[in-house]
Amino acid sequence: MYSATIIGASGYSGQETLDRILRHPELELAALGSDTYAGQPASSLDPRLARSSKPVPAFVTNADALTSAADVTFLCQGHETAAAFEPPANGIVVDLSGAHRSNDPAIYEQWYGFSHPRADELAAWTYAVPELTPPDGRLIANPGCYAIATILALAPLARAIETSGVVVDAKSGVSGAGRVPKDASHAGAVLDNFKPYRVGSHQHEPEIASALGFDICFVPHLLPIRRGIIATCYVVPRDGADLRALLQAAYADAPAVDVLPEGVLPELSRVQQTDATELGVFEDQATDRVIVIAAIDNLGKGAAGSAIQNANIALGIEPTTGLRLSGVLA
Amino acid sequence: MYSATIIGASGYSGQETLDRILRHPELELAALGSDTYAGQPASSLDPRLARSSKPVPAFVTNADALTSAADVTFLCQGHETAAAFEPPANGIVVDLSGAHRSNDPAIYEQWYGFSHPRADELAAWTYAVPELTPPDGRLIANPGCYAIATILALAPLARAIETSGVVVDAKSGVSGAGRVPKDASHAGAVLDNFKPYRVGSHQHEPEIASALGFDICFVPHLLPIRRGIIATCYVVPRDGADLRALLQAAYADAPAVDVLPEGVLPELSRVQQTDATELGVFEDQATDRVIVIAAIDNLGKGAAGSAIQNANIALGIEPTTGLRLSGVLA
Amino acid sequence: MYSATIIGASGYSGQETLDRILRHPELELAALGSDTYAGQPASSLDPRLARSSKPVPAFVTNADALTSAADVTFLCQGHETAAAFEPPANGIVVDLSGAHRSNDPAIYEQWYGFSHPRADELAAWTYAVPELTPPDGRLIANPGCYAIATILALAPLARAIETSGVVVDAKSGVSGAGRVPKDASHAGAVLDNFKPYRVGSHQHEPEIASALGFDICFVPHLLPIRRGIIATCYVVPRDGADLRALLQAAYADAPAVDVLPEGVLPELSRVQQTDATELGVFEDQATDRVIVIAAIDNLGKGAAGSAIQNANIALGIEPTTGLRLSGVLA
Amino acid sequence: MYSATIIGASGYSGQETLDRILRHPELELAALGSDTYAGQPASSLDPRLARSSKPVPAFVTNADALTSAADVTFLCQGHETAAAFEPPANGIVVDLSGAHRSNDPAIYEQWYGFSHPRADELAAWTYAVPELTPPDGRLIANPGCYAIATILALAPLARAIETSGVVVDAKSGVSGAGRVPKDASHAGAVLDNFKPYRVGSHQHEPEIASALGFDICFVPHLLPIRRGIIATCYVVPRDGADLRALLQAAYADAPAVDVLPEGVLPELSRVQQTDATELGVFEDQATDRVIVIAAIDNLGKGAAGSAIQNANIALGIEPTTGLRLSGVLA
Repeated sequence: MYSATIIGASGYSGQETLDRILRHPELELAALGSDTYAGQPASSLDPRLARSSKPVPAFVTNADALTSAADVTFLCQGHETAAAFEPPANGIVVDLSGAHRSNDPAIYEQWYGFSHPRADELAAWTYAVPELTPPDGRLIANPGCYAIATILALAPLARAIETSGVVVDAKSGVSGAGRVPKDASHAGAVLDNFKPYRVGSHQHEPEIASALGFDICFVPHLLPIRRGIIATCYVVPRDGADLRALLQAAYADAPAVDVLPEGVLPELSRVQQTDATELGVFEDQATDRVIVIAAIDNLGKGAAGSAIQNANIALGIEPTTGLRLSGVLA
Repeated sequence: MYSATIIGASGYSGQETLDRILRHPELELAALGSDTYAGQPASSLDPRLARSSKPVPAFVTNADALTSAADVTFLCQGHETAAAFEPPANGIVVDLSGAHRSNDPAIYEQWYGFSHPRADELAAWTYAVPELTPPDGRLIANPGCYAIATILALAPLARAIETSGVVVDAKSGVSGAGRVPKDASHAGAVLDNFKPYRVGSHQHEPEIASALGFDICFVPHLLPIRRGIIATCYVVPRDGADLRALLQAAYADAPAVDVLPEGVLPELSRVQQTDATELGVFEDQATDRVIVIAAIDNLGKGAAGSAIQNANIALGIEPTTGLRLSGVLA
Repeated sequence: MYSATIIGASGYSGQETLDRILRHPELELAALGSDTYAGQPASSLDPRLARSSKPVPAFVTNADALTSAADVTFLCQGHETAAAFEPPANGIVVDLSGAHRSNDPAIYEQWYGFSHPRADELAAWTYAVPELTPPDGRLIANPGCYAIATILALAPLARAIETSGVVVDAKSGVSGAGRVPKDASHAGAVLDNFKPYRVGSHQHEPEIASALGFDICFVPHLLPIRRGIIATCYVVPRDGADLRALLQAAYADAPAVDVLPEGVLPELSRVQQTDATELGVFEDQATDRVIVIAAIDNLGKGAAGSAIQNANIALGIEPTTGLRLSGVLA
Repeated sequence: MYSATIIGASGYSGQETLDRILRHPELELAALGSDTYAGQPASSLDPRLARSSKPVPAFVTNADALTSAADVTFLCQGHETAAAFEPPANGIVVDLSGAHRSNDPAIYEQWYGFSHPRADELAAWTYAVPELTPPDGRLIANPGCYAIATILALAPLARAIETSGVVVDAKSGVSGAGRVPKDASHAGAVLDNFKPYRVGSHQHEPEIASALGFDICFVPHLLPIRRGIIATCYVVPRDGADLRALLQAAYADAPAVDVLPEGVLPELSRVQQTDATELGVFEDQATDRVIVIAAIDNLGKGAAGSAIQNANIALGIEPTTGLRLSGVLA
């Protein structure tokens, strides 16, 4: 058994990480950090935690949680808070925020809107997509939710498509905005509504561009849904490229990525509450475009699922251990 | 006062057309046709119709309704049914279906999946977007919901953008699929879900292409929402073109189309239950794309609103008479 | 024309009141108060306000707005803030909060959780349900949203039913909780969810009890919906009482209350975005209960609609002037 | 390992039963019956079935499936179809429909609206609530979804409460209406809407009455949600009865029923996609009522979960084997 600590355990990504740890056969909890809930039992966050078959410690402050010397520490805080984080001397760290996804400090100024406080340490972190670029160090930057959906859809195709003119139109459930109440996540602004946001200026664009090797035009939208992302990616294949075959080859041994049979449309209901990915490939009848569509749960494959998968790889465990690869059928 | 008859009055577009007629100061109802409701009072469709201040006749069969010799007949049926329709000898006809949107019979075979039964009469109909290509004959093909959103966003820009590589990613509420119960419109398949459909093969592509003068790559998606369309349009401006200025000029005198101020994002909640259109223009930070976003109500501007507007123009009335141009604020 | 000022114009009930004033033929805006938006144009709250055909002033502070000496002042603030409000020397005041709904200071301590700062002035206010107990002074306490739904359903029956054992199970959309972001109104807690809250302890119980003359057992629930209340009321009729006939008689001349024909079920979709009320009466097959069901929009008849109606009555105008009595049909 | 066959496997309750069988360590699939899908692979219903680690046979007709001589047959059809079902000569049968929940043929005429075709065999079936009245024969009538929520909340209290005047106000997601498209389950009628239905005449009332020993007043409502039921039960305790203590005692050894700590409110988000039950007990501040609230997933504890649990008991297996007792946390 390996020990795991969560910093920021009461936010969405923290709670989802906790969920995967509780069902993981080789992880046990060292500490649950939350400055909001410190001193309270875990069940104060969710009453179901009182019935867990695996021991769940009470919340402590994030500072206290960091003293737990766990084998793996999951950092589940906001971008700017996480950027100031001083990693423990030992053990694996998986940062679920955007604070260590780029080595270039200018990215944080332009796209995140803050000056990185530990810019000279950025190179110590590696950006890891489990199926494509698995972690090879102990400090792991977990991909953004939109980013991993797009990268899983397009990275295996990068040499087979025209690299200019790629458009990614993405739609996400509201949990991507985090648990802290804001005007934009007020139910009155979300229910029975749909809208784009940060049009052409979302901070996941540079990490996608870095992973693919070229810029894309990226527009996110907010769905009146709790969980899930659909990324609809528009590309032009180079001569004769069979994009479906390339994706099938890339994910032949990837249990968490399913290239759907021809004609089957990805949809959120099949990936919500899971760590699975659905990919579909479609030809346009009117132009030379091919459309590659990815569906994930933004809190699953888009956050906690990949974080656990990255931690598993770093620990030398079977990568999909503890993941939820299939939801309830109906 | 002009008389109006609705054929297929109990479907969504029929009922919405009825709604606009009831609040229209210059239209009165000649007949309400519905083969399903024939013989029943209007209130059997919606109990609020029992309280209408304007007289609402009982439903008759569609065949009987056609004998009403109304000044305007609104044809609110399915594509294939409407294609077989024999227009009355006199009076304006506005067809809200797709049955007369193209003069080319091959379009119906390829994109609609049926052979047009009155192909030689297609040329008698004119496709009319009220603000851009108003009707000039008595047989009027009303635009499709996705089509009018896209055309309003892009037609004024057609000469100012690269005509290849245009991508339109659209999202619609479920009422676009009509009122007849189907697997795809079952609430269990729609609620808390989101998915693409007819990827690259939706029948609105050719009418958009015809209006713009070039093909686009068009992908629709189904929102877990009753009403509303967002069309996110990705274009590359030609040298120096100011797309926002072009749209503002095109719609300076169009009360039903609002080019939003810079930075204001279109959203469904402000156009639902109205006949209004919101347009937003945004530059991409990473590529040379400009994103033009249209928001409409698919049953309003996307169907009944434009149908009334086209009828008004054909009757010589102020075009926006009887429309709902603003919903409830909050 | 009468002048109207809104205090707290940027909250939900304030914005809805603004909406009714803009469409009211005999009201014009004196001032829009909002401490949050003071100094900004009205369109900063909602871009549609830039296109209003009636003049809309810029926001000023609530204190400044109060100096406008309007014929009617609508008080649209939180309970505790409104309780400290010093009414202007002249003019009608309609308080949409709960701060003046009871004359008994103890009610505020027990059910609202605060000590009323102006307890000795409570008797100057009159609690007004437009159709049943219209206002007869210039200081008007507008009913609570759950309260008015329940009172409209039950008050005309008070002498015809057993007064013990009445149960009211109510369900509301999230806008009833106001626009300030809170954990409970975060879309992640509301979407695809449903739950009771303040079970047996909601602050609308005492105003309902006061209006009916007896206590009820009242439980509210939160719907994953923006707007609307269904109050399902369970009563036992006294010998031979015809509850439907009593309601029909009570509302024969009330355009904003519709007693539905037998067998027609009230539903939210027909009253949302309106100031209308639907009432249905049903007999239980298994017990001696009769079920009376009311449907309203919590921001319409449950707030701004009744506020305008009360103001109209106090001004001597036709009561339903400026109201939205019917939504879009489909 | 025991073999299991599903009759009507492509409906909601059939698919959910399949889901539990696939994760059940002691059940394997004998046959999947569906007259709609016969001849097609299981993945034609849901593409995830192509990736199942447990073998999933192709669909056969229901008649063919019945020849599989399975240890357990799950009957997942409509009430009237299931009523005509001739049980196999051997093996356990669990009927998830309402066709065998009462021994009294008159119930079917009055509440279900059909004459039972095999009325003289009704006595061979036993109605089984796993935690309270476990099955003791091979022909098992599984409880209705509303019924089991209400019975779990009230049956342990039956002697401690006044038996007249009990009110149960229930709210369900749309999957309770089955997968066959109907007007009432059309997303356009469900989304952003809420309404009561079958007020005082729902067919689950008699089975609740039979289980409790007295009639209740029962009103169901339709939530704009896919899955989940909240039953809000209003009772008057007899002198000094401690209803919470009675429920805690009844379910002390029931892993699928959780009596929540004082002050914790049941909610759907925690039980959706699970076979768990949450019960809460609350005192009314204004009257002598106590409110007992049950939350379940209508397709989980309300259908497939209880069916598997009943089958486990009949097979002599640990009752909650194969169930989903906890969902994803966030």
